[in-house]
Amino acid sequence: MDFTISRFAPLPGHAATGPGSVGLPAGYRAAGIHAGIKRRRRDLGILVSDVPSVSAVFFTTNAAAAAPVLVTRESCDCTALQAVVVNSGNANASTGKTGYADAERMRALAASELALPIENVAVSSTGVIGSPLPMDVIEPGIARCARTLAEDGGEKFAEAIRTTDRSDKQLGLTVATKTGDVHIGFASKGAGMISPKMATTLTFVTTDAAVPAGLWHEMMAMGVRESFNRITVDGQESTNDMVLGFANGASRARVGDVETELLAQALQAGLLALALAVVADGEGATVTVRLRVAGARDAGEAERAGRAVANSPLVKAAVYGRDANWGRVISAAGMTLPQDAAGRFAPDVSYGDVLLLRDGDPVELVPAQAERLEAVLADAELDIALDLHRGDATAAVYFSDLSHDYVRLNAGRRT
Amino acid sequence: MDFTISRFAPLPGHAATGPGSVGLPAGYRAAGIHAGIKRRRRDLGILVSDVPSVSAVFFTTNAAAAAPVLVTRESCDCTALQAVVVNSGNANASTGKTGYADAERMRALAASELALPIENVAVSSTGVIGSPLPMDVIEPGIARCARTLAEDGGEKFAEAIRTTDRSDKQLGLTVATKTGDVHIGFASKGAGMISPKMATTLTFVTTDAAVPAGLWHEMMAMGVRESFNRITVDGQESTNDMVLGFANGASRARVGDVETELLAQALQAGLLALALAVVADGEGATVTVRLRVAGARDAGEAERAGRAVANSPLVKAAVYGRDANWGRVISAAGMTLPQDAAGRFAPDVSYGDVLLLRDGDPVELVPAQAERLEAVLADAELDIALDLHRGDATAAVYFSDLSHDYVRLNAGRRT
Repeated sequence: MDFTISRFAPLPGHAATGPGSVGLPAGYRAAGIHAGIKRRRRDLGILVSDVPSVSAVFFTTNAAAAAPVLVTRESCDCTALQAVVVNSGNANASTGKTGYADAERMRALAASELALPIENVAVSSTGVIGSPLPMDVIEPGIARCARTLAEDGGEKFAEAIRTTDRSDKQLGLTVATKTGDVHIGFASKGAGMISPKMATTLTFVTTDAAVPAGLWHEMMAMGVRESFNRITVDGQESTNDMVLGFANGASRARVGDVETELLAQALQAGLLALALAVVADGEGATVTVRLRVAGARDAGEAERAGRAVANSPLVKAAVYGRDANWGRVISAAGMTLPQDAAGRFAPDVSYGDVLLLRDGDPVELVPAQAERLEAVLADAELDIALDLHRGDATAAVYFSDLSHDYVRLNAGRRT
Repeated sequence: MDFTISRFAPLPGHAATGPGSVGLPAGYRAAGIHAGIKRRRRDLGILVSDVPSVSAVFFTTNAAAAAPVLVTRESCDCTALQAVVVNSGNANASTGKTGYADAERMRALAASELALPIENVAVSSTGVIGSPLPMDVIEPGIARCARTLAEDGGEKFAEAIRTTDRSDKQLGLTVATKTGDVHIGFASKGAGMISPKMATTLTFVTTDAAVPAGLWHEMMAMGVRESFNRITVDGQESTNDMVLGFANGASRARVGDVETELLAQALQAGLLALALAVVADGEGATVTVRLRVAGARDAGEAERAGRAVANSPLVKAAVYGRDANWGRVISAAGMTLPQDAAGRFAPDVSYGDVLLLRDGDPVELVPAQAERLEAVLADAELDIALDLHRGDATAAVYFSDLSHDYVRLNAGRRT
């Protein structure tokens, strides 16, 4: 599988449709409108399965979780969700009891419009923390939004969930089975506060495959673990993160063991593609880094080292400056490792295919290598490999650089 | 005790001398020269006690510790150091076996010039990671530097240890005893890679008080814990951090229990003043934040929450933008806290004396409070108080903001 959504190569047996041309799988309708939370852009969306569906949902682990997260987690049937109502422009986070009541009200209104029990409707928000939801525009907005639900409404829905995203984040995959095609649709929002575990990402997955609830949860959990839980823009876990997947079985295709395996692969590939698109579109990001840590004593050590590098502002600023500053990489990783009296910390570091540090000793580059390094750094995607030489465990972490635009975006105004 | 070095108020019985007028305590000489590691500025310094001294030294805990740290830690008598040789402009970090030999050579040359055993001479470096030390200029530099050692050489020494520091970081304190005055001198370098535990800080403390080695270690350890281990600029622990204190007894004053207590207070106050000066001069820093976390279940929880806030790029960028974005504060703290099914996370947050969040509910500000908040944010020093309402433990963390200058300084070139 390839690295970014733009280069996303469909798996054997799948056909990818590019951003901007993503339909919804069978049995779903969606809508996105401008309710008036933001000045001009779409800011309210509804996604619904017209037939009962199974669902799997993953929330932020932040103790300061927002009201919609609390409401969905505490009083929905999270394995049988059939719809979600989402607003952008306001996170309904740190809004106290009023915020909780507002999230409940959003859900109740959407459920009423959709003629569904409230426990089958999730509610989700993203945007500014600490301001009360403008219910005066949201309440009529929900009714208006429900009236525009359509099979081709996926794009408008995807637009409505975005905040400072610069790029569209949709993907459609088709998995061919002997009894017909099944489809998976993905819509994400990202940008800022992107970190394991999860990101301020809202991601909604729809499939028309028929999958038992337990299996669907397992497939989604594995996909999220290897995608959204592996990315970081700024180490900040949001109050509002949610990844929600529906499977409604409307395709009528029979999903046997082989198809289940293909479906799981496609799901994971799609989630990773979306997660990488979120990194590439991180606030101010100019470079997407794929860091591979190897040679750790155990998976935890590999992951801690990888995340320390991925969240180091010094590493990130150097990447922005197109400086192969491997010293900052090993210094950041070194923060997380024990100081062994026995063995010196003597790692290898490569940028792209250029080895810069071997067993803790800097490699003197010949002119051809130096030239190659220039080319590696000029790309918008950068592979860094760090071998700790301490054991056999590995981890991958994906992150963005730290640019002037990050500071400008986050210092200038509430986002 | 007051907040920054500029407002540093001497303790009762102490007289502070301001930056730029700091002499050395009795029995010490120092020097700082331009050896040629940097283009123009002083880059090599020696500090020596002319009489045997006791010492206490604290190193980075980074597994990627630099060669001078390893050499000093592994083969010096760290309780009886009498001199230190320091260079700036090159960290001698990640320089492999050559770097280790170079650090040993630096120490051997200095020891020879000072006619001291090598185990009584520390070696220290700060600057770029991963380049070999230019021994061709350092070797003659050490001899030249040793020839200029003088009782009034403290300022030149302080200048020689600085890297991207914008401000002078020296302080002198006098403690009056019945048998005469004792003095403490402090010289620090900071800027960038400033984080608990310790900072890329090099800090050298000299006193002419007579203190037993064990007691001196205890006093220094407590001072460092409450100062340099409480600050962060960017969460990055350096490969080269070192805080080294000498006590040589040359004052001839008798230090009894009362004087020991005063001396410990002065030492701690001085270290905190220097640590805050390092934060204020953090790369690109425009604001120094003093964060007080209260209401944690235990000290560890208080500290984790405080450091998560202090290292949050979103919080830091908001401080830079003079935005009282308490939502980012509780979101960062929330990342470190468990999600309790029992009790909601309902903290208080104040900026200065303005309460913005009470029990998790935003406080609506009356115009006078909003005006007051503007004034609080306009200051170069900001107090943020976060009460987690979970217990009785507290922690203080000091940090700087994230500005365009931070990115410019760290993206533009190797530092």
